Amino acid sequence: MRTLDVQAIEDIALGAAVLGTGGGGDPYVGKLMAIQAIEEFGPIKLLEPNEVPDDALIVPTAMMGAPTVLVEKVPNGEEVIGAFHSLESYLKQPVYATIPIEAGGVNSMIPLALAARLGIPVVDTDGMGRAFPELQMVTFHLHGISATPMVLCDEKGNNIMLNTVDNVWTERLARNATVVMGGSVMLAIYPMTGSQLKQSGIHGIVTLTEKIGRAIRESKSQRLDPVQTVLQVTGGFELFRGKVTDVARKTVGGFARGESKLEGIDGYKGETMTLNFQNEHLIARTEAEVLATTPDLIAVLDVETGRPITTEGLRYGARAVVIGIPCNPQWRTDKGLATVGPRYFGYDLDYIPVEERVRNSKGGQR
Amino acid sequence: MRTLDVQAIEDIALGAAVLGTGGGGDPYVGKLMAIQAIEEFGPIKLLEPNEVPDDALIVPTAMMGAPTVLVEKVPNGEEVIGAFHSLESYLKQPVYATIPIEAGGVNSMIPLALAARLGIPVVDTDGMGRAFPELQMVTFHLHGISATPMVLCDEKGNNIMLNTVDNVWTERLARNATVVMGGSVMLAIYPMTGSQLKQSGIHGIVTLTEKIGRAIRESKSQRLDPVQTVLQVTGGFELFRGKVTDVARKTVGGFARGESKLEGIDGYKGETMTLNFQNEHLIARTEAEVLATTPDLIAVLDVETGRPITTEGLRYGARAVVIGIPCNPQWRTDKGLATVGPRYFGYDLDYIPVEERVRNSKGGQR
Repeated sequence: MRTLDVQAIEDIALGAAVLGTGGGGDPYVGKLMAIQAIEEFGPIKLLEPNEVPDDALIVPTAMMGAPTVLVEKVPNGEEVIGAFHSLESYLKQPVYATIPIEAGGVNSMIPLALAARLGIPVVDTDGMGRAFPELQMVTFHLHGISATPMVLCDEKGNNIMLNTVDNVWTERLARNATVVMGGSVMLAIYPMTGSQLKQSGIHGIVTLTEKIGRAIRESKSQRLDPVQTVLQVTGGFELFRGKVTDVARKTVGGFARGESKLEGIDGYKGETMTLNFQNEHLIARTEAEVLATTPDLIAVLDVETGRPITTEGLRYGARAVVIGIPCNPQWRTDKGLATVGPRYFGYDLDYIPVEERVRNSKGGQR
Repeated sequence: MRTLDVQAIEDIALGAAVLGTGGGGDPYVGKLMAIQAIEEFGPIKLLEPNEVPDDALIVPTAMMGAPTVLVEKVPNGEEVIGAFHSLESYLKQPVYATIPIEAGGVNSMIPLALAARLGIPVVDTDGMGRAFPELQMVTFHLHGISATPMVLCDEKGNNIMLNTVDNVWTERLARNATVVMGGSVMLAIYPMTGSQLKQSGIHGIVTLTEKIGRAIRESKSQRLDPVQTVLQVTGGFELFRGKVTDVARKTVGGFARGESKLEGIDGYKGETMTLNFQNEHLIARTEAEVLATTPDLIAVLDVETGRPITTEGLRYGARAVVIGIPCNPQWRTDKGLATVGPRYFGYDLDYIPVEERVRNSKGGQR
């Protein structure tokens, strides 16, 4: 166990934005919530998975809603506490610890703010190793763990408890309720035992995001290229460098869907990269070839600072590096690919690991 | 207290279709459920409101969904039991009795089937005195009673418990969930005390629907005009007689919305009546004048048999009588009209009681 202080939160938020792969909301808002909670309630306890008793009740927490909406509505934190207590009450068991559903984006911060406020620990584990747009897209689902009973709360005080027949129904009903409630709600979901957490989660992920954030932060003083340090810490690959020339984005059915284009600079002059996203980046391709697809991570970093840029943050003319990071192996199983592979999202593409695509790339290493 | 047998169910279902004012679903399906429940579990106990203890827990039950969808999906009864037990569990109190939310349409039958199955009584009271399309359109709402906690269940086993900030949010969230779940769900809603029921409900309504149904049934053997007997029992007025020439109906946002037209016959030759509906009929007008509006009841009866015709049942060429029945006085209050008056539904019309409209009608009594 170790404690997380304000600097750790800053680093985690930054690293989480890289793993947020363009989506996951802007961690800035979530960061403020977490920092404020630490300042009010003290540092957060981060547990290693092994420290969790097998029969403990672990409840992941998150916010839900299209990132474009999350930027508009600043949550006050009370809603997630309401969701949490409803579930505790229903399950008739106190919650031992919480975890992030997804370590990427705002949802890296929500459980930290909650944990500080409620005096419970967070476990260094998530269900994605990144961010994904839909609720069944977690390793817990791959292991047959039910998303419900779950609770959703909005900032007005509306509270919904779902008990569904499967996790796809959970995504459908929760997403719909989120749109009706105004686009941004808090969830307490996938209640599980310590034993289930240990078997199914992606471990060490909070620590990884902290490392990524610290690497970006320290690269300036260490006179290192921040993009290179990110690639080093994540085991990722540079896919493209370019100037943003187009971003087409619209909020549809609770998701921010769209496409952005970058015009190549430096060694990529004359090429154009297209990024497709549904909250998170799903496909990265040039006219010549596909360079990375979901479930591998596709992140956009600022050329100078290495800082990640979300799809809401993409501006015409911005100079960016597109990187690809191999996903957690759980996503490369048959069930993993059926859940988050390109075909699930409607792309007529087979999944090929990014390290292979890069190795075989016609452009070679530029 | 008295018991309801199969004949009573038949009469109630028929009378409920009159008070269903064109909507409320086809009671035939609900009738089968109730009759089957009686045959399996014995007659149903119908209590007078005065027999209910002040501190008893009363939970209205209903089905929800656009009537056009309800006709397609036959419910099996299990869902409402699931909804009911979830709420009992949450409120930590056994339910003393149930009542219909609305005495019009299929929802006259649902609580009867449930009551027979669970061995609890039904109280001779509802919240509308007819059918209305939205969940806040009940006298309980006028009296400040909260619709939540409430539970919705579908036939697949999905179960949603809502706790909302107001009854309009309940309608919004429940309606949306209904559309997502496939259009037809069971509800346990507006949990209240016996005292609240006595203060706010519309009493004697189940008995009234039974009288209407019996009057239609017996008119043939008594050589009476069935339409006249309906008018007598309900205190209603004939508004028009015509042949159905047009029905335009579509399911939008969980409601069956549309308009039907009748070409006048007998004393109404040369005139055309238009009926606007949102599940239930809302406006009845000719080219010359408006003859009735919500919240007064507008029902369509078969010219020969006096049997009510729902909007799904309207066929080109059918010869029908359109009747108007004064609504319960609770709906004529300021809050009542704000909740169910023409302007709530978007019609630029003031509410004038049907008895006044008929009295002042240019067409006179034909």
